[in-house]
Amino acid sequence: MSIDVLQAKIRKLKNPSAVGLDPQLAYIPRFIQEEAFSAYGKTLQGAAKAYEVFCKGILDALKEIVPAVKIQSAYFEALGHDGILTMENVNRYAKELGYYVIMDHMRGDVGIVAEVCAQSYLGSVCVDGQEYTPYHCDGITVNGYLGSDGISPFLPYCKEGKNVFLLVKTSNKSSREVQDLISGDRVIHTVMADLAMRWSGDLFGRSGYSEIAIVVGATNPAILKNLREKYDRLFFLVPGYGTQGGSAKDVQYAFDRFGHGALVSASRSILCAWQKDGGDGEDYLICAQEAAEKMRSDILKFITIL
Amino acid sequence: MSIDVLQAKIRKLKNPSAVGLDPQLAYIPRFIQEEAFSAYGKTLQGAAKAYEVFCKGILDALKEIVPAVKIQSAYFEALGHDGILTMENVNRYAKELGYYVIMDHMRGDVGIVAEVCAQSYLGSVCVDGQEYTPYHCDGITVNGYLGSDGISPFLPYCKEGKNVFLLVKTSNKSSREVQDLISGDRVIHTVMADLAMRWSGDLFGRSGYSEIAIVVGATNPAILKNLREKYDRLFFLVPGYGTQGGSAKDVQYAFDRFGHGALVSASRSILCAWQKDGGDGEDYLICAQEAAEKMRSDILKFITIL
Repeated sequence: MSIDVLQAKIRKLKNPSAVGLDPQLAYIPRFIQEEAFSAYGKTLQGAAKAYEVFCKGILDALKEIVPAVKIQSAYFEALGHDGILTMENVNRYAKELGYYVIMDHMRGDVGIVAEVCAQSYLGSVCVDGQEYTPYHCDGITVNGYLGSDGISPFLPYCKEGKNVFLLVKTSNKSSREVQDLISGDRVIHTVMADLAMRWSGDLFGRSGYSEIAIVVGATNPAILKNLREKYDRLFFLVPGYGTQGGSAKDVQYAFDRFGHGALVSASRSILCAWQKDGGDGEDYLICAQEAAEKMRSDILKFITIL
Repeated sequence: MSIDVLQAKIRKLKNPSAVGLDPQLAYIPRFIQEEAFSAYGKTLQGAAKAYEVFCKGILDALKEIVPAVKIQSAYFEALGHDGILTMENVNRYAKELGYYVIMDHMRGDVGIVAEVCAQSYLGSVCVDGQEYTPYHCDGITVNGYLGSDGISPFLPYCKEGKNVFLLVKTSNKSSREVQDLISGDRVIHTVMADLAMRWSGDLFGRSGYSEIAIVVGATNPAILKNLREKYDRLFFLVPGYGTQGGSAKDVQYAFDRFGHGALVSASRSILCAWQKDGGDGEDYLICAQEAAEKMRSDILKFITIL
């Protein structure tokens, strides 16, 4: 995969959105939980099995609608090794179904730690000559607070068609406390975007976009607009759509004039769509499809994907 | 545990240092690898078993010398669910032996994601009424680039005696690219330290130190000194000692006049001490003990712990 492949998948499905897999038991219909608990007990393993059934169901249901999936590793980690086994299985399944897979890992580290992260998520892990790929991801979110030393270990993988999504401006209110501070003639979040440009070097796809993308929250339309104008060669991952407050009207500014250059992700508004009608969730897949289709059509009211 | 308990452990062993568990196969003596591979194959599971034997050996060897352990989750994650199972076992074993356990997680996220992180690492995870603690940690490193929304979910756990270690100034060279930028009359890394003070509220231990500690690299003695003077109520976790370049002379500035207020961590200089004499590592535990004792005595040349 690469930023070009992601853009091509978006164009094919005419849908610039990603489903965020942020499972919690509270999001999962009771019948799925009961089945997992009856087989594995009310244990971390039981919860992990419920996550797996739920997530694979969502992936099956959306495969003709949504081109990409963003997997939030913290939710799986919370269930210990059982959760990580589920995350591996969900990642692999998403790849098999043809999704572009982003690991939402939100770490920032340097040196060997960053190398190990890059290997395990974007490359392969060597055990005495044998190569393994525990995770199968096309891209990973990275926090750049530590500077170039935290990004350079990922660059060789970007050369081979993987992507980094660097946190620039997040969708939460208090993001301004650090990200909007002014330093010289720049705000800190543009310092990050400038670093993304610098690190890009010659890593640009045929679409014109860098293999190093940036994360810009859906809740700041003015900032989205400014950043889109200023950084016309950086692809945007735009979280915060739906339950977190970002609307189709807001995210239109993330796209270029061809309707390219951005991927909008939503989690709860799709995963929990079944809860809206007060039912027991037997229809959770249909509800997720409807929510994903509504998200697509809402966004396409404001942009046209050429 | 709490910052007071950590300080008491440091005083008891007269050692303000932590061993960093950053396992890699290259750090592990061949005889341990061979035994794990012969039982589990040259697989991720085999590597994870080698990590477990190696790390538990180090924990056994240092339990009377070193008060704290810093576990780098990325190294375990790299081996998939087998690695995470090993991390759980190593965490639990470290707690059983009485270590103060820091999870070096280096994430920054907000809202429910941060809540889930806080629960799983510092609290417990609820599965339909049953509580589980997959990890057993006393503190966790957190990246504050996302602002207060990323820290507030951890505060209830800090009230209950857990600790957050907020990244302020890291030990890598390129940390200056973001962390040393000037905004108004502050540099960005002091903005972070100011946030740590603000978030501390009334979360101060009897030692006078906040339950929210900060991470300041060993490689910047001038910055260590400035921060120690300015933030006399923030406890410092000081990585970057040894192989990464920080010396005992450098880290002396992290301590207050009672020799309190800081924990210095070293990984490779202890884990890989056996490689110095060119042997096969049969003596890796003795070498680790000697390296940890030398680190302690080197630091104690410059400070006195009252």
